[in-house]
Amino acid sequence: MSNLTKAMSKFRLAVVQLQVTSVKADNLSRARRLVQQAAGEGSKVVLLPECFNSPYGTGFFASYAERIPGESTQVLSEVAKENKVYLVGGSIPEEDGGKLYNSCTVFGPDGELILKHRKIHLFDIDVPGKIRFQESETLSPGDNLSMFETPFCKVGVGICYDMRFAELAQLYSRKGCQLLVYPGAFNMTTGPAHWELLQRGRALDNQVYVATASPARDETASYVAWGHSTVVNPWGEVVSKAGAEEAVIYADIDLQYLADIRQQIPITVQRRSDLYTVKTVQEGSS
Amino acid sequence: MSNLTKAMSKFRLAVVQLQVTSVKADNLSRARRLVQQAAGEGSKVVLLPECFNSPYGTGFFASYAERIPGESTQVLSEVAKENKVYLVGGSIPEEDGGKLYNSCTVFGPDGELILKHRKIHLFDIDVPGKIRFQESETLSPGDNLSMFETPFCKVGVGICYDMRFAELAQLYSRKGCQLLVYPGAFNMTTGPAHWELLQRGRALDNQVYVATASPARDETASYVAWGHSTVVNPWGEVVSKAGAEEAVIYADIDLQYLADIRQQIPITVQRRSDLYTVKTVQEGSS
Repeated sequence: MSNLTKAMSKFRLAVVQLQVTSVKADNLSRARRLVQQAAGEGSKVVLLPECFNSPYGTGFFASYAERIPGESTQVLSEVAKENKVYLVGGSIPEEDGGKLYNSCTVFGPDGELILKHRKIHLFDIDVPGKIRFQESETLSPGDNLSMFETPFCKVGVGICYDMRFAELAQLYSRKGCQLLVYPGAFNMTTGPAHWELLQRGRALDNQVYVATASPARDETASYVAWGHSTVVNPWGEVVSKAGAEEAVIYADIDLQYLADIRQQIPITVQRRSDLYTVKTVQEGSS
Repeated sequence: MSNLTKAMSKFRLAVVQLQVTSVKADNLSRARRLVQQAAGEGSKVVLLPECFNSPYGTGFFASYAERIPGESTQVLSEVAKENKVYLVGGSIPEEDGGKLYNSCTVFGPDGELILKHRKIHLFDIDVPGKIRFQESETLSPGDNLSMFETPFCKVGVGICYDMRFAELAQLYSRKGCQLLVYPGAFNMTTGPAHWELLQRGRALDNQVYVATASPARDETASYVAWGHSTVVNPWGEVVSKAGAEEAVIYADIDLQYLADIRQQIPITVQRRSDLYTVKTVQEGSS
């Protein structure tokens, strides 16, 4: 391995567990400050939470929605450029052609928009007496898988409920992603039950790093996020985890370690492609 | 729901965590006794561990191997019939046409052989300083998915390392299985790290019950099994779990509960089949 390759095989990832309020300008300025803090700690990739500029709830999406580019993504672009980081901008309610989407934008260290992921799987659940939420009452789904390249590794993007669908992670990893990022806002029912389990499962099954970014918990909000933003390594271990409060957590992503795991338990080459396959059916045109 | 349907929507599953020794006759007689005990507790489906009639190890497979039908499967057939249970006979080293397989046989309550699953994914791992094991040095792989019907639900069968491959579980559940069973013998490295995580992940991702049967731990064996046979429900919770010693554990499988989970978090109908698919490429004959 050359020195250059070796240098590129490790990088610091930061996850910003933002305290999201109903004041958009405050959300943007706090995000700006925390990304700057993360970059100051040497982070090359920084991840913001789902719905980082707006309270999460079907009653809020329309009033907080923006076109892309727009106010919030302009801030993300500037922050990425100022701090020379890959910035996975959590998600924002996006308005386009009279429809609303839950959309994640990714900006490169030059401030250019390099990806927009619209949540593919809308969060429609109903656990009687616990939690009912129907994103599809107000949002439209995206139709695309979303990956981007960095000098370190390829990254696959999903938003929250997208994480429940193993196929998305399988396709991302088959297409070469070594890090999967999921801005997400699980709640006080599904959070303790499934949040960590899903991440550890995706990481172990695909031998990739998985990172999630939740808003900090706000007990006064109509939808109370679980918090506990997490980074999991390819052995399925939690390597970094926030509590419920606003925080920035860090993980040093080690692609040589990932390669070692894949050699030790070589499931990536032992899959029985003669018996089964996971395939993309089609990809929309954005 | 009719009373008959309601009666059929619950059944008791037993997992026999057998203490496997080097004396085949002892393994068979102890299995017989414990299945009888499980049936006495009302179990309708009973699961034995991987390699239940032989120590687990490449040095043992050839000398303990049998044709099917043969001595061990004859015992399984009798035991299933005597106790009127579906008996998932863990696995045994099978000899056929000069090749060796790691094979699971399933017998119905009438004693008839209803399925034979040959381990599809051979266990070849090398974690330096921890565990090296290469099943492929002596065994040949199977080429078939294996499901069977009961009056309660359809059941999918895998053996140990098969559990690491998410596709198998995905296909079984897409084909209607509501219970997945994995006789398996994880070790003291992969056991604590991955045994429970894999089961909980398979259960949650597919909203099915998952049951595993390990041999009891024998610290004097060349390959030390982790033990901790487990049953997980479709919410991803462990509902029954053995320690390291010989034991029979029970779980009441509730298919109405499974249906409720699928309604509450409806991922089974929300998958984006327009974007991705998990497919069988071919199935061998046999």
